Amino acid sequence: MAGRSLVTLDDISTGQILELIHKARYIESNREKVAGTCNGRVLATLFYEPSTRTRLSFETAMLRLGGHVVGFPSAKLSSATKGETVYDTLKVVSNYADVVAIRHPKEGAVLVAADAADVPVINAGDGGHMHPTQTLADLATLDSRLGRFTDITIGLCGDLRFGRTVHSLIETLCRFGGVRFVLISPEELRTPRYVRDVIDASATCSYVETGSLTDVIGDLDALYMTRVQQERFENESDYLRLRDTYVLDTEKMTLAKPNMPVLHPLPRVNEIARDVDKDPRAAYFEQTRQGMLMRMALESSVLGDELAGYDPLGGVDLTVHDDGAQNGQDEGSFARLARSSILIDGVCPNPHCITTSENGLEQRCYRIVTGDDVRTGAAGRRCVYCDAELD
Amino acid sequence: MAGRSLVTLDDISTGQILELIHKARYIESNREKVAGTCNGRVLATLFYEPSTRTRLSFETAMLRLGGHVVGFPSAKLSSATKGETVYDTLKVVSNYADVVAIRHPKEGAVLVAADAADVPVINAGDGGHMHPTQTLADLATLDSRLGRFTDITIGLCGDLRFGRTVHSLIETLCRFGGVRFVLISPEELRTPRYVRDVIDASATCSYVETGSLTDVIGDLDALYMTRVQQERFENESDYLRLRDTYVLDTEKMTLAKPNMPVLHPLPRVNEIARDVDKDPRAAYFEQTRQGMLMRMALESSVLGDELAGYDPLGGVDLTVHDDGAQNGQDEGSFARLARSSILIDGVCPNPHCITTSENGLEQRCYRIVTGDDVRTGAAGRRCVYCDAELD
Amino acid sequence: MAGRSLVTLDDISTGQILELIHKARYIESNREKVAGTCNGRVLATLFYEPSTRTRLSFETAMLRLGGHVVGFPSAKLSSATKGETVYDTLKVVSNYADVVAIRHPKEGAVLVAADAADVPVINAGDGGHMHPTQTLADLATLDSRLGRFTDITIGLCGDLRFGRTVHSLIETLCRFGGVRFVLISPEELRTPRYVRDVIDASATCSYVETGSLTDVIGDLDALYMTRVQQERFENESDYLRLRDTYVLDTEKMTLAKPNMPVLHPLPRVNEIARDVDKDPRAAYFEQTRQGMLMRMALESSVLGDELAGYDPLGGVDLTVHDDGAQNGQDEGSFARLARSSILIDGVCPNPHCITTSENGLEQRCYRIVTGDDVRTGAAGRRCVYCDAELD
Repeated sequence: MAGRSLVTLDDISTGQILELIHKARYIESNREKVAGTCNGRVLATLFYEPSTRTRLSFETAMLRLGGHVVGFPSAKLSSATKGETVYDTLKVVSNYADVVAIRHPKEGAVLVAADAADVPVINAGDGGHMHPTQTLADLATLDSRLGRFTDITIGLCGDLRFGRTVHSLIETLCRFGGVRFVLISPEELRTPRYVRDVIDASATCSYVETGSLTDVIGDLDALYMTRVQQERFENESDYLRLRDTYVLDTEKMTLAKPNMPVLHPLPRVNEIARDVDKDPRAAYFEQTRQGMLMRMALESSVLGDELAGYDPLGGVDLTVHDDGAQNGQDEGSFARLARSSILIDGVCPNPHCITTSENGLEQRCYRIVTGDDVRTGAAGRRCVYCDAELD
Repeated sequence: MAGRSLVTLDDISTGQILELIHKARYIESNREKVAGTCNGRVLATLFYEPSTRTRLSFETAMLRLGGHVVGFPSAKLSSATKGETVYDTLKVVSNYADVVAIRHPKEGAVLVAADAADVPVINAGDGGHMHPTQTLADLATLDSRLGRFTDITIGLCGDLRFGRTVHSLIETLCRFGGVRFVLISPEELRTPRYVRDVIDASATCSYVETGSLTDVIGDLDALYMTRVQQERFENESDYLRLRDTYVLDTEKMTLAKPNMPVLHPLPRVNEIARDVDKDPRAAYFEQTRQGMLMRMALESSVLGDELAGYDPLGGVDLTVHDDGAQNGQDEGSFARLARSSILIDGVCPNPHCITTSENGLEQRCYRIVTGDDVRTGAAGRRCVYCDAELD
Repeated sequence: MAGRSLVTLDDISTGQILELIHKARYIESNREKVAGTCNGRVLATLFYEPSTRTRLSFETAMLRLGGHVVGFPSAKLSSATKGETVYDTLKVVSNYADVVAIRHPKEGAVLVAADAADVPVINAGDGGHMHPTQTLADLATLDSRLGRFTDITIGLCGDLRFGRTVHSLIETLCRFGGVRFVLISPEELRTPRYVRDVIDASATCSYVETGSLTDVIGDLDALYMTRVQQERFENESDYLRLRDTYVLDTEKMTLAKPNMPVLHPLPRVNEIARDVDKDPRAAYFEQTRQGMLMRMALESSVLGDELAGYDPLGGVDLTVHDDGAQNGQDEGSFARLARSSILIDGVCPNPHCITTSENGLEQRCYRIVTGDDVRTGAAGRRCVYCDAELD
């Protein structure tokens, strides 16, 4: 992975994901031994919108490897206010830093950034589009608590419609395969068709949908909670009626298996009662620690800095079911960008797409090769930046 | 002190305060020797409201000990805007950092933070409530200039009613004892009853009140100036009439003792004329250096990191008069939190209390044991977070 | 230069500028050898207005020398909002940091800062007044691409009226001499009289003015592009008519010499087409790298920290034509401040001058010694802070 960017998890193979988890385990047990891994390196954290937890995680990861950090925590504090493009900013920052972590409110902005930069770029969230290191943290937490993330029954609860975190987790678990998904949400917030299609396309995964957490919690090996945000509902009464159904409390926890970990991408509002924190099955704060460890693994990997004493898995692909590889997903964002030879005159219809705000950017699209493509569920042209359907 | 938080100065004994000053002296004389004390450590500075001077002091202190820093300089740049509680933020940051310095506009917020965190938390100011490291800087400056802070006559001048800094200094000096306070303020800004009660409760301290700086400046061993803020007055004419009375200029300095240090918590507006800066008795800029040294002493102490070559005072309590210990103040914020077994249904009446904004927080109170309690001057129930009277 | 501040380039001699470039070259080739040059040092970056590129450059420079960084990226995050003066802030920060880089929207603010500080202060831009490290980056880029910056024909294109960067570059090149300036701008944005006077005062420099980039591009050894900002024009049609004339594209580049470097202070809006980036003559991104290297040279120099293995030019002044020295410019900002014995009762007429916002600042002026002064082109009194004419 040395020298490569991580825009989406499709940029790395399932074998590389397992290697990162293996590295994170090694780092956790050898904090002092790895403390000089990135000596003299500089990470730039370019956060065009604030996200304290993610930014501090990336930064602490680099500092604990011996590197340094520069950056900005908000676009208001950046030259973006002078109208500088993401492209130019990354061209400049490439001259300062050895690796960049970027968060941006526009979908596809990180692909633009990675294309411009001469150094590896890591996606720390681009709008509602992608947030790959969150998924890496989720996988590492499941692995830490259960010793595996295949051959499990996992419940996903709350807002399954808009939750980018949930979609990315589902798609990634499907690449490894052997997962039974229990999708727990109100009707208004059901998992979208194209995400369920990803599960259907996997030979070894399946799903059921339900509106009741209480009914199914006893069957789960792991539970992934998400926020139910009031602004998703048309009126307050719908929100209030549904909200409490999806609140996890100590009473519901009595119905769960004795070692069922509870995950949550945070921040929580009130969907997990404070009392649950004391339950040893609460894994959502450990999840942030796993996130930092995965970012340490990732930052050192893309920099090509070797961890002292580390014994790699060695390129052996340990995955049992790599559905993704069968669909050619492993070629990466840049291969996809490169092969997108069709230049479009129009603009992307997605108002959140980076093409709507970035000057000088060519609108490109890519054509899905086969009708059974697992990521998108449709043949057709899509924006190479934000994945929106163009026609 | 290793592993302990500092929410208020009541959390540490007078012996520990003297140890910190002793450490600060050692650090000052051995900058290079102590430069690796906190190698590999990470300090998180969580500033929910901006305070450049305090933040930079905490950060430089950690950097000069060999550690690293992450954090945010303003709540606008933090996940607080997504509704995350102080409690959850600290649970997360505990997974990144080894020690936390927190500033928050709500009173009691730092007690919530310290309760949540798994690592030591240092109060860098919680609203108008507490700012213990400012008081440590004040003590170290007095010690540096006078060689002592007992058996002195100290003048406190300006806004003695609302100035948290002044109240904390008075209370702490009373724990050591032997201090004659000269309280210099306009009638509108007199020292509150409960603060004067603290002095009265000390067998070895006393005070006089006056409206004239000129009348008393010649008697002082040290002078502590504070801002007189216009917004404290009902009309502008009162403000303008009084303001200049409390301005220290070179003319008033001619009346003072030849080695009377002038302290000020900064920022100053115009209450000390610029010309006074050149007077060697001006100690307010040195005060910021003493603050940084005390924060170096404090950060290394709560981390349990030993200063190379340091010879401790060794637990010998050198205080002459420890009035505080007699009143059981040394038990600390957490002991107080723990013994507060009464849960209240209502809410704290103080609109600046953290209980008014933080979700999921139990309202607790503590009952003052005796009527002669020196901190509060009253028996009764008080909010355990902000110390406001509940009835 | 150890211990000295850099407020304007007049503070250092042409020999010192050449030494800095020599150091930057050495640093570039010896990254690892110099990585511990500033071990234990702390740089404070006080940015009263945001400027990501400049701030990150200063910070990365210090980190790559082994030092640490504290600071604030915007005045909204500083104690300036509590009314603290620049003077007091610098008095305090001197107690934390070993060197300060400051950017401020008011002209002359950095002279106030340097006057207050007990440590070296570097100007990172004070309003439209000075930005000396930008000019150092420009010189280093010319030197890197052409091997020299004397005996060249350089085109300056775009807004030559308001562009502080361009004025500073012209004045500095004139100190070295032997430069033919081609000033390319619309009539509305011509180079000001006093800047052209600087060229006229140089025995070895000359200029021509033109409105057409296409006509002259073939004659240039180097081209310096600047932004043409819409807000400089009275009506939009004037702007639109002129804008494209000053856009550099691949077509115009075909007319240029095969090794003519293109510089730009950035950010660009659209005055250089994206396609030009791929042309090897595009030097504007390398320019930011040169800027970082020059800041490494400057920071280590003012700190007095020697680069391991570095062989200095040794005080030999290699300049061929040092016009500036003849006019006594080498005495520096502080000599100028010191000799300004005239205190004015009125205020500086420049609304952007620091004297209009900073409390307690004496209004001073300096009298130009001779009528042929090259910097100002006039005998008369000028504000010592912002250089505005007082009468």
